[in-house]
Amino acid sequence: MKFSFRPTEGAFYELFTKAAYNLVRGTELLNELALPGVDVQSVSERLTEVEHDSDQLTHELYKKINSTFITPFDREDIYRLGSQLDDVMDHLEAVGSLLYLYGLTKLPALPREMHELVAVLDQQAKLTADAMPRLRTMKALEDYWIECNRLENDGDRAYRMLLVRLFSGEYDALTVLKMKEVADELEAACDAFEHVANTVETIAVKES
Amino acid sequence: MKFSFRPTEGAFYELFTKAAYNLVRGTELLNELALPGVDVQSVSERLTEVEHDSDQLTHELYKKINSTFITPFDREDIYRLGSQLDDVMDHLEAVGSLLYLYGLTKLPALPREMHELVAVLDQQAKLTADAMPRLRTMKALEDYWIECNRLENDGDRAYRMLLVRLFSGEYDALTVLKMKEVADELEAACDAFEHVANTVETIAVKES
Amino acid sequence: MKFSFRPTEGAFYELFTKAAYNLVRGTELLNELALPGVDVQSVSERLTEVEHDSDQLTHELYKKINSTFITPFDREDIYRLGSQLDDVMDHLEAVGSLLYLYGLTKLPALPREMHELVAVLDQQAKLTADAMPRLRTMKALEDYWIECNRLENDGDRAYRMLLVRLFSGEYDALTVLKMKEVADELEAACDAFEHVANTVETIAVKES
Repeated sequence: MKFSFRPTEGAFYELFTKAAYNLVRGTELLNELALPGVDVQSVSERLTEVEHDSDQLTHELYKKINSTFITPFDREDIYRLGSQLDDVMDHLEAVGSLLYLYGLTKLPALPREMHELVAVLDQQAKLTADAMPRLRTMKALEDYWIECNRLENDGDRAYRMLLVRLFSGEYDALTVLKMKEVADELEAACDAFEHVANTVETIAVKES
Repeated sequence: MKFSFRPTEGAFYELFTKAAYNLVRGTELLNELALPGVDVQSVSERLTEVEHDSDQLTHELYKKINSTFITPFDREDIYRLGSQLDDVMDHLEAVGSLLYLYGLTKLPALPREMHELVAVLDQQAKLTADAMPRLRTMKALEDYWIECNRLENDGDRAYRMLLVRLFSGEYDALTVLKMKEVADELEAACDAFEHVANTVETIAVKES
Repeated sequence: MKFSFRPTEGAFYELFTKAAYNLVRGTELLNELALPGVDVQSVSERLTEVEHDSDQLTHELYKKINSTFITPFDREDIYRLGSQLDDVMDHLEAVGSLLYLYGLTKLPALPREMHELVAVLDQQAKLTADAMPRLRTMKALEDYWIECNRLENDGDRAYRMLLVRLFSGEYDALTVLKMKEVADELEAACDAFEHVANTVETIAVKES
């Protein structure tokens, strides 16, 4: 394996930024699901494409780590950040896929709290995409992780109220189970964004 | 950022100890839920207060790590321990909150296995609170983590039997789903105590 | 505590290999559950025995780490690999145990997708057992982790289709809930094998 002896730091920041922009594409696709008459299968398929693209970015990142002699920060933290960005994408893709597979979109409308969760994810995605390029200077990152954690709290609350709604007797048991699976993926995506933020915090603290 | 050059180790042990004592307060509040005629809303609100207090302790800990030049043990392990203590609290708070939000306390009684799980958590909390000050000398910690892991096994068994009970046909499907959420949080709290114990073990092994 | 100053590397590889062979025994026992007229209680009990054996191997490994001065690779990675192999076993044992406790084997047949998941686990177990001895030379490991990750994707797909089946209306709500618990343990085992593979990758990358 050839090593590049000059740090090619730029490539790392670019890969993180691209991966985070894919998350924005992902949450924007989920937002489309709220539109009347939306083609859920098409949204789900486009989400799967974005997810494949993210997988490739992650593999590129891993190869880069292995072939780079000096990495901009701890090798292990680069791994972790890459795989955590990938985790978010997996959950976003699962949301679209499950909505489609379970035929949930035949319902007159999805519960309002689900759209609230998607709105939280969308904000987290945009914050994350904005923050990634700032890893280069390690400056002005604190606001990002504080806000991302705050949004996760919002998401938690929306998730709890979504379950209260699902268990209220408004839906039959099987529909509840299906929507619960979707809700769990939304909440996991919200958590996964927080994990990304926590890793950024850890990196920034080490470098400070 | 100002650094203190003399290690202020004491503050770390104090924060861990305080965080662990909050867990004891948490499990004691959960114990109250077994009392006849208990005011669930009030218990849930007090749990939320304790959880807020724990959040503040965690933030204080993080600030302390960032402003301290020499930490008593690996910076990353301090982070991990702090965040794992916080995780336990989050699950305890969720138990009270869900019982209240789902209106589960209108049932004549909660299943016996739920109280068994709370009893396990109460023992784990007390063990943890007793162990935290011993981090200072790294002595006599082995009993703690062995016992905490043993209790987690007890908790696992109680959780399994709780699910057998919930799925027995004694309750309607929506009630089962609600109680399952509570059961999952109780089990997650039990696991979270084990994670704390595992981190203490890792720290002690490194220092030995 | 006595330290051995000459690296006794061999013992570590042996313990990993033994632990992985227990996973093969575990998945083979799960395979038996597909046989007509199988004695589920007996299979579940034998799984519990294998799990106890794995617990002992894990403890032996931990003791070995603590009493060895020079470990073949990072102490923390040895811990992680050991505990992740143990995690897989815990999920395999849970599958047998839940099938028995919930009386699910009184159904005419388990869903086909469940057997598909067991088949994936069986392949992952065999790959893992084959790979462990290669940790000694760190050679020819890449195929293992790539294939193990690929199998995890297969498992994910089978899991999703299993849930679609469970939520289709073919079963009553309580049976769905019971089978969902089993499905979750199968899927968690599949994930846990991937975690093992990821740790092997991390170790191999560090050593390369």
